[in-house]
Amino acid sequence: MASAKRLGILGSTGSIGVSTLDIVAAFPDQFEVVTLTAGNNLVRLEEQIRRFRPQMVAVLSEDGAKQLKQRLGDEAPQILSGIEGLVACATHAGIDMVVSAIVGAAGLVPTMSAIESGKDIALANKETLVTAGSLITEAVARHGVRLFPVDSEHSAIFQSLEGHRMDDVRRLILTASGGPFRNRPLEEMVDITPADALAHPNWSMGRKISIDSATMMNKGLEVIEARWLFDVPADRIAVHIHPQSIVHSLVEYIDGAVIAQLGIPDMKTPIAYALSHPNRLPLDLPALDLCSLRNLTFDDPDLERFPCLGLAYDALAMDGTAPAVLNAANEVAVDAFLNEEIAFLDIARIIGATLKGLKVKPLEHIDDVLRADLWGRREARRLIDSQAEGGQAC
Amino acid sequence: MASAKRLGILGSTGSIGVSTLDIVAAFPDQFEVVTLTAGNNLVRLEEQIRRFRPQMVAVLSEDGAKQLKQRLGDEAPQILSGIEGLVACATHAGIDMVVSAIVGAAGLVPTMSAIESGKDIALANKETLVTAGSLITEAVARHGVRLFPVDSEHSAIFQSLEGHRMDDVRRLILTASGGPFRNRPLEEMVDITPADALAHPNWSMGRKISIDSATMMNKGLEVIEARWLFDVPADRIAVHIHPQSIVHSLVEYIDGAVIAQLGIPDMKTPIAYALSHPNRLPLDLPALDLCSLRNLTFDDPDLERFPCLGLAYDALAMDGTAPAVLNAANEVAVDAFLNEEIAFLDIARIIGATLKGLKVKPLEHIDDVLRADLWGRREARRLIDSQAEGGQAC
Repeated sequence: MASAKRLGILGSTGSIGVSTLDIVAAFPDQFEVVTLTAGNNLVRLEEQIRRFRPQMVAVLSEDGAKQLKQRLGDEAPQILSGIEGLVACATHAGIDMVVSAIVGAAGLVPTMSAIESGKDIALANKETLVTAGSLITEAVARHGVRLFPVDSEHSAIFQSLEGHRMDDVRRLILTASGGPFRNRPLEEMVDITPADALAHPNWSMGRKISIDSATMMNKGLEVIEARWLFDVPADRIAVHIHPQSIVHSLVEYIDGAVIAQLGIPDMKTPIAYALSHPNRLPLDLPALDLCSLRNLTFDDPDLERFPCLGLAYDALAMDGTAPAVLNAANEVAVDAFLNEEIAFLDIARIIGATLKGLKVKPLEHIDDVLRADLWGRREARRLIDSQAEGGQAC
Repeated sequence: MASAKRLGILGSTGSIGVSTLDIVAAFPDQFEVVTLTAGNNLVRLEEQIRRFRPQMVAVLSEDGAKQLKQRLGDEAPQILSGIEGLVACATHAGIDMVVSAIVGAAGLVPTMSAIESGKDIALANKETLVTAGSLITEAVARHGVRLFPVDSEHSAIFQSLEGHRMDDVRRLILTASGGPFRNRPLEEMVDITPADALAHPNWSMGRKISIDSATMMNKGLEVIEARWLFDVPADRIAVHIHPQSIVHSLVEYIDGAVIAQLGIPDMKTPIAYALSHPNRLPLDLPALDLCSLRNLTFDDPDLERFPCLGLAYDALAMDGTAPAVLNAANEVAVDAFLNEEIAFLDIARIIGATLKGLKVKPLEHIDDVLRADLWGRREARRLIDSQAEGGQAC
């Protein structure tokens, strides 16, 4: 029997982190937790430390690290803080695979560090590939590590490519629930409130991701990720609206065959596949009962009503720093929408205007990404403020 | 570049044979036709000979062979007849792969001969695995050849297994159109006529196969084939009614993931995959446009209205000679239904009664299959005649 796979879990108290640890708990012979990192949820992290006994953990602040040390007393592992702590947990000599599940731009640097120290990556952090795709894929190739997608769409494509040749691929087809407004006419989208947008039909998710689902920017970001994960150009990546969220994505081949991965909407399946590839784990999940479903439908997305999806393709075409700027502007715009500073349709307008003002530069180093991210945030913020002052931002 | 794959095509004038040759014609660098066999369609065979220049052909009768020689004159290849001719074309030293596309029980012996002489098989003939599954899979293993399924359901499962581990499979799910009577209440199935039954919604096919589709015996036979092709026990092979015939079949894994193969209903895709596995061929087929479909639905089959499906599972459970008897009785019963000797619902009754009278024997040699086939035909015929004479056959 192979020895247990030794894991570092970045973002262990978030939803992906918790599901990952559920899987570890269910298969204790197969996995060992060596490092954990969390942001501010010290209560949950403390429970996880007592249960999984990692050798090293990292939290956001020095103060948090101190608190945690006190609470754990003699049971405390090595406890670090800040970005140095994160990187130490991502590059620890005792781990085989890093589960990159930090939400947001903070995931980029530790993920890159993990790749550079030869760790395989189970990637849940969207920003890593969205903002730094070319740098990440270069580093993955250079260090001979493997990058396994964790979110359901990319895992579906990954599973639909296994055993088949990339040369035979015609198109990748990402499915999208279409979000809560998929059937709403454009003229009724003007007065969408944050509360309207925070209700998602199929998946339970955080506020930022819910808004991304409502604008379909989530799918735009996934198109960018797919471009890098699978090395397929954007014009061969399609999006289909599939409100039932049962077909998680598809691959179309040159002979007309389409391979798809289906399942109930549960993140444990893609997480477990990333953790144990090429093997599968016998998860304790209800089987997909196709016969109990009313039907499965597919539709082309409406780029007029969901311009964020088009903006993501635009950013891919602009290349270089553009996707990082798209992502940064989106974060700022979504935040402004949630704070009721701007209207729903302004999200895309702010992002579009930010991209319009960008002088694209090539990505040569991770610092180029960080600079582009910063510029995108400032520019989007400026445009929002100028709009609030009655100016014509976009 | 690899040299062309050298093919022997058994049943070259039937629908699978013709599609196979269409693919050969489209990819002349990749395939070479070395042998062809046909039954009575000498006109089409002559055209195929002039076009594809095989080294050897076989037809059903000596008389047919003579005619063909005369018509081809100096252009005639070696022309044989009868079962010896078939076997010679299946075992020719110059071929790498045999496309087994003869319809009916006549396909069994030449297919087994091809396996025994070390040829890979692209298998379209249903009877081979239905009647002699254990013998065939034994021979395939002993001679180290590969057996590629050609029909759409098994090809879909084969494609959905590629790159994944058989140990991780929970269930195979064969889809079925459900045939023309999938929504007809049982009491209205009594007076179904051959003409009613010969209209199939999605695929164009021969008379025997159309009736098998209407009774769902086609799916029963496919369950038996799947059991042998993939070495999965019958209780882990399910059937779903899927009237749109877009999802060609699915595989459910232990982690809840389901992999499916989809496509337009065209036999060229599975044929080409069998011919060129693990590569795919860029076929000139319209792409599957999921967004133009109204919806996709799945239902459990109703074994009360479609008892033939249950009989196939019964025959698998009985093992040994039972599937060969099931198949033989079905052929005779379908024939009697087409000749208006028996009613639609009698087809299953005759098959059930035939199986009931069977003393199952293990399969040790292909002759056991041939004897069981003969016995099944005679017994089914006897039951039909006795019913016609007013007796209570079943």
